[in-house]
Amino acid sequence: MIIAGIVAEYNPLHNGHLYQLDTLRKQLNPDVTIAVMSGNFLQRGEPSLVSKWIRTRMALEAGIDLVLELPYVFAVGKADVFARGAVTILDRIGANRLIFGSECGRIEPFYNSLSLIHENKPIYNAHLIEAMAQGVSYPNAHAAAYRFIAQNCKKELVDLTQPNNNLGFQYVNAIDQLGSTMIPVTVRRKQTEHNDLSLDPDASIASATSIRTHLLSGRPLKRISNKLPVYTVAALQDAEKTNGYASWERFFPFLKYALLSSSKERLLSIYEMEEGIEHRLLDCIRTANSFHEFISRVKTKRYTWARLQRLCVHILTGASKHDAKPLALYGDPDSARLLGMSQKGQAYLSSIRKNSAFTIISKIRNYRSPMLELDIKAAQIYDYLAANRNATRTETGHPPLRYDQKNYE
Amino acid sequence: MIIAGIVAEYNPLHNGHLYQLDTLRKQLNPDVTIAVMSGNFLQRGEPSLVSKWIRTRMALEAGIDLVLELPYVFAVGKADVFARGAVTILDRIGANRLIFGSECGRIEPFYNSLSLIHENKPIYNAHLIEAMAQGVSYPNAHAAAYRFIAQNCKKELVDLTQPNNNLGFQYVNAIDQLGSTMIPVTVRRKQTEHNDLSLDPDASIASATSIRTHLLSGRPLKRISNKLPVYTVAALQDAEKTNGYASWERFFPFLKYALLSSSKERLLSIYEMEEGIEHRLLDCIRTANSFHEFISRVKTKRYTWARLQRLCVHILTGASKHDAKPLALYGDPDSARLLGMSQKGQAYLSSIRKNSAFTIISKIRNYRSPMLELDIKAAQIYDYLAANRNATRTETGHPPLRYDQKNYE
Repeated sequence: MIIAGIVAEYNPLHNGHLYQLDTLRKQLNPDVTIAVMSGNFLQRGEPSLVSKWIRTRMALEAGIDLVLELPYVFAVGKADVFARGAVTILDRIGANRLIFGSECGRIEPFYNSLSLIHENKPIYNAHLIEAMAQGVSYPNAHAAAYRFIAQNCKKELVDLTQPNNNLGFQYVNAIDQLGSTMIPVTVRRKQTEHNDLSLDPDASIASATSIRTHLLSGRPLKRISNKLPVYTVAALQDAEKTNGYASWERFFPFLKYALLSSSKERLLSIYEMEEGIEHRLLDCIRTANSFHEFISRVKTKRYTWARLQRLCVHILTGASKHDAKPLALYGDPDSARLLGMSQKGQAYLSSIRKNSAFTIISKIRNYRSPMLELDIKAAQIYDYLAANRNATRTETGHPPLRYDQKNYE
Repeated sequence: MIIAGIVAEYNPLHNGHLYQLDTLRKQLNPDVTIAVMSGNFLQRGEPSLVSKWIRTRMALEAGIDLVLELPYVFAVGKADVFARGAVTILDRIGANRLIFGSECGRIEPFYNSLSLIHENKPIYNAHLIEAMAQGVSYPNAHAAAYRFIAQNCKKELVDLTQPNNNLGFQYVNAIDQLGSTMIPVTVRRKQTEHNDLSLDPDASIASATSIRTHLLSGRPLKRISNKLPVYTVAALQDAEKTNGYASWERFFPFLKYALLSSSKERLLSIYEMEEGIEHRLLDCIRTANSFHEFISRVKTKRYTWARLQRLCVHILTGASKHDAKPLALYGDPDSARLLGMSQKGQAYLSSIRKNSAFTIISKIRNYRSPMLELDIKAAQIYDYLAANRNATRTETGHPPLRYDQKNYE
């Protein structure tokens, strides 16, 4: 039985994702397909355009059988933390294949790169630490250290400066570290040769980044509807008619207020806040009139844009070092929240539930854990800020979506 | 030399205040009149309609010579804390008369009541504690204890169930406790016989409460302009044209967000948060769609409306027990911020500055104290929330207003 696992954000789900799922079906013909999907805040430290429930519906329409939520501490984490959380959940739920898109498109180079780093760990670490001590950001320090040990390598390596290659490498590494028997499978990303941000009007596939940029700038949805499945278009049309898209610019007044009302001590208690950066944040926020302006001012070469955005998500949700750090560092998810399922997914869940020590949470009223508390808090804040503040949607009362039935529940 | 002190909120300054100042001039003919005025958050736990700077201008137009800011910890404090802070500042700045409005209108009953409580302190305290142990709010417990010791008293006492009598009593008590030589003088409040909330269209005097209720409900300013001096009308017209009035309902989304993003531990660190109430606040906020709805749900007989509102101000400004409690309990202001002055006020300041250990803060850039930090934080939050979030007004750079000059600075 082939149980295929995918790590996804679906922000929004587009034709590129469908292409990946089609390739998966042709290559593996899985019995069940499981997606571990980020909630309302994403790995680059941004709110999702539309809520996790709307994105879950898209995933079910696209043929995913089970959608599980990647907990906040992993979803809004550095690439290695993100990968470890997602891979662990897929392993525990019984996935035996992990499918990911990459620029590279073949799996051997990932293993070669992994071996290379393992075999040259002391040299790699020495270079990494030296660069970071000079104020270089982690991703750039990693790239330089990797380049150094790669220079005399005869085997084919994966180009880790490509974003999807890098994330895929983190998955392969996480599988290795976890000692999982899950087999990683990579699908070559199909996309135009152009820059990620540009949109070819006739192409049926565009990057999620370019789609979001188009939508958040207020340009018409119909101009890019050829790049999206019909149900995504319908969901986005619905969002445009009601609450609009969630974005950092819309949430910015609340971030600004959160910073204005915080003491330095309080800021230092926020997850991923490093000594020193709190002064910059407080100095820059007073006169900043937009999120973009704010981050531009705070930015130094030490911090990547994504890292600052993640830090801002933690400020917005009030995620503290005390609550989040132990979970992100050592957290071994023994449970995951079920966001949606097809009938096939439901049958699969029933079959594994008897034997599994892993808890699938359907009703969060009946379950409490520190990890879930952070998810609920983040979701309540997102719902309130995204819904123009008049929503009374109760995150805690939301049941998993069911597909194949006449109506969604 | 008669230096008259007044404790004020001027929210907004109306004809009743002018009547008080006129009576003061006729009765005392003071050489200098000094107002200690609350900043942007007031004793009943509400944001002021318009900022402290606009209200300072009203005070100067009305003939006040010096306007000093009552620090946040006192301004948003229980009546006794509020009175102690204001009276201390007036004493330190050299005021030798304290003028306050009251329903009673004569000073002897205040002294009689003060003596009565002093002489019956053990019985009074026993009754107070017993009632509070039964869950009665402090003001009601105080009223019952006072009624008990007053029942056999032959002297004329002041009716402390009247709000202005009660506040006046706190001033007299604070003068006594401080050992100040300042002489309290009370002016009978001139107002209609009607309920505070009703507005007689023809009367030239109405309560500040009824004026605020009228304005915040969106009714036309011109309908009540006969109850306000022309400069108040002009300032309010200006506010209506630009940012509108600050109010709890406008600030509510930020209070709701602050609660949604706070843990119980964080809430318990907030000033005046008592163990137990944090659960009610978190339970009631989720589905509350307005400030009024929220407070109505949280309200019990143990907490007065004003006390809950003050608690909400502390949540909004992030005022912690750690920062605020020592100041409110033992804080002895050795400085006060100058908000505005007439030429006469400026001359008076020069005359006392040489000999005084009390610091008048004109440029807050040059002065730092824990008390002032709270004021600045509260003002920055108020400015941001009241100014429709596009203000770049820098509280820290605002100099005192000067009257008598061609233009305000």
